Amino acid sequence: VDDVGTARVETFSDGVFAIAATLLILEIGVATPLHHSLGHELLHLWPSYLAYVTSFLTIAILWVNHHEVFSLIGRADRTLLFVNSLFLLVVAFIPFPTRLVAEFLNKTGERDAVLAYSITLALMAVLYNLLWRYASSNRRLIAEAVPQAHVDAITRAFRPGWILYLGIVALVFASPIAAVAMTLALAAFYVPSSALWVRKDGSAGM
Amino acid sequence: VDDVGTARVETFSDGVFAIAATLLILEIGVATPLHHSLGHELLHLWPSYLAYVTSFLTIAILWVNHHEVFSLIGRADRTLLFVNSLFLLVVAFIPFPTRLVAEFLNKTGERDAVLAYSITLALMAVLYNLLWRYASSNRRLIAEAVPQAHVDAITRAFRPGWILYLGIVALVFASPIAAVAMTLALAAFYVPSSALWVRKDGSAGM
Amino acid sequence: VDDVGTARVETFSDGVFAIAATLLILEIGVATPLHHSLGHELLHLWPSYLAYVTSFLTIAILWVNHHEVFSLIGRADRTLLFVNSLFLLVVAFIPFPTRLVAEFLNKTGERDAVLAYSITLALMAVLYNLLWRYASSNRRLIAEAVPQAHVDAITRAFRPGWILYLGIVALVFASPIAAVAMTLALAAFYVPSSALWVRKDGSAGM
Amino acid sequence: VDDVGTARVETFSDGVFAIAATLLILEIGVATPLHHSLGHELLHLWPSYLAYVTSFLTIAILWVNHHEVFSLIGRADRTLLFVNSLFLLVVAFIPFPTRLVAEFLNKTGERDAVLAYSITLALMAVLYNLLWRYASSNRRLIAEAVPQAHVDAITRAFRPGWILYLGIVALVFASPIAAVAMTLALAAFYVPSSALWVRKDGSAGM
Repeated sequence: VDDVGTARVETFSDGVFAIAATLLILEIGVATPLHHSLGHELLHLWPSYLAYVTSFLTIAILWVNHHEVFSLIGRADRTLLFVNSLFLLVVAFIPFPTRLVAEFLNKTGERDAVLAYSITLALMAVLYNLLWRYASSNRRLIAEAVPQAHVDAITRAFRPGWILYLGIVALVFASPIAAVAMTLALAAFYVPSSALWVRKDGSAGM
Repeated sequence: VDDVGTARVETFSDGVFAIAATLLILEIGVATPLHHSLGHELLHLWPSYLAYVTSFLTIAILWVNHHEVFSLIGRADRTLLFVNSLFLLVVAFIPFPTRLVAEFLNKTGERDAVLAYSITLALMAVLYNLLWRYASSNRRLIAEAVPQAHVDAITRAFRPGWILYLGIVALVFASPIAAVAMTLALAAFYVPSSALWVRKDGSAGM
Repeated sequence: VDDVGTARVETFSDGVFAIAATLLILEIGVATPLHHSLGHELLHLWPSYLAYVTSFLTIAILWVNHHEVFSLIGRADRTLLFVNSLFLLVVAFIPFPTRLVAEFLNKTGERDAVLAYSITLALMAVLYNLLWRYASSNRRLIAEAVPQAHVDAITRAFRPGWILYLGIVALVFASPIAAVAMTLALAAFYVPSSALWVRKDGSAGM
Repeated sequence: VDDVGTARVETFSDGVFAIAATLLILEIGVATPLHHSLGHELLHLWPSYLAYVTSFLTIAILWVNHHEVFSLIGRADRTLLFVNSLFLLVVAFIPFPTRLVAEFLNKTGERDAVLAYSITLALMAVLYNLLWRYASSNRRLIAEAVPQAHVDAITRAFRPGWILYLGIVALVFASPIAAVAMTLALAAFYVPSSALWVRKDGSAGM
């Protein structure tokens, strides 16, 4: 079985990331007829804004990371394509639990809504980790020019990712709103400092 | 009449594939007001998840296949552009029957919903086959550098495709849910092993 | 004032075309609760399918044409960018009157719905013509390598376009359904034979 | 910490701009059942058309400007990526306040709707300005080949931008409809003449 280049996979992935991020806005809405003034209703939509910002930043950062990882991968095989398709399937799914959080946060059902959201993100993190492990173990699909120190640094940087997202799933049972806040913090602080900023000499650039 | 290159066709096709796959999520929703707890409602949405996963994987794999086929086609003529437009028209239509399956599976109307879904996919498979037959017969639009053995291998690999999708249309009358499961199995197992993985020496890479 | 290249304009235009075509499907839906069997309802959605096919093919062909025209344009100035933005604004607007046709064809209000649809397409054709006239008169923005005979052939091929679309607006008053059918025929037969297939020697390739 | 090229950022940005512009049309709709003839309802949708045109042109022009600015930026660092993500987050948010303007202009709640709209655009202008200031001060991320006069000209051209958008926020309290009209005028006249048309010799090309 032949291997193929990764340009094709990247184009499709780019499209899915950009569209998933932009579709999020369709999930925000004001219910009409209004019960209060529009201004009042807009201020009470804060769970929608929080969910939107959290998901948008998560997808934006994921996209940058995914691109970085694929710049190290020299060729794709059938397993990689399949795992990447599953990963994108979960990324494109994010608008749905985002809408649940927007609609149910601070209301009856918020635990289930945030649980669905955090499980989706944890599943995404697990698949992303799987994708990298498959591609990088024994340098299976890594391009020849990439130094092993660089590969190892990314592996170290990714290690805590899926554990953190699983931790957020557990946190939902203590406090759904704290779980959403932690997800936002992860997108804003942890992830941008991981794969993307690994020094070329192999140390993590944090 | 002059022929034109295929880069233009591919860019437009890429866009349609990525957007159609990502729009699928907009078809999933929880009806409010809730009749049960949100968690209960989310678990009972499984037909939506099944429909989403089946359509997403089908479109993702189609996209990879389509790209592969166009890498062998050296030029486009008017007929190819027209058939490709019809093919994309059907691809972009997939979110609609997907929503029908999501909404009606396991309820009154499931047969009609899955019938609409399987007819759409069969039509897509027929048009895809037509596109390849038109381009490949007598190497009409095949790039010169491509070995005939490679063309023949793809033709052999594609042959069962539309027949399988037509078989699924027939299966709907026996069991709608089995027809959806078969569609998912086709996306996960059959299609990835066909055109994409044909060995360059001309044997199918299964 | 400096002129700029056209690559930027083309990327944005590509995105708008592909997304506008794919969003059309979101305008089709079955009203629930159903009054008849789902199969019955799906068959009675034919105005939606007709509107979808007509708009999708119109946008697909427009996209190919637009790409061809921009391959002849060597540089963009402020006026071209502005007219092109207005043109894309109308292209991205097409899903709205398409939904009107899908919803009101064969019902009270069909004349107004098809009128809105045909006026939108006529406006688009006028802006497209304007864009070409501005770029091509005295070869204002035409790339140097393009032979004048090629420019003249496209000008001749485009001439009937906006007149035909205006004719369809008039036809709405006689028969709305005939006007939609004519729009579909234009997309399927006339447009693909115009700009795209002009022979390089300057004769129109019909 | 290593810096990275800007191609990745630009691809994602392109996608978000094109999709945000095209999604706007989903926010326009006719409420059924109709209270008047469809034609009458369509004419009374003018606030929707005004909001659509204003937002589409604003995003189209922004996109061209953003592309121009990134052609001068030679490399991206963590701060730039973060500010750009926040900027895109606001761009992708525009369809939501656009829908508010479309729905509430000329009705109870119009002040709050236009306020939400103008605050969104002002926030976007502030973030865009921040992005440019960060990249350009002391030529932090500017490519070496770009003359300082060009950088200075863009800085001068951008200076009034966010002040104008903040001015529109104030104008909402005097007249919401005038504020929308001013936003449209800004998109049609001011912005296209700023960054894009700076002469290469460093003078602003207005």
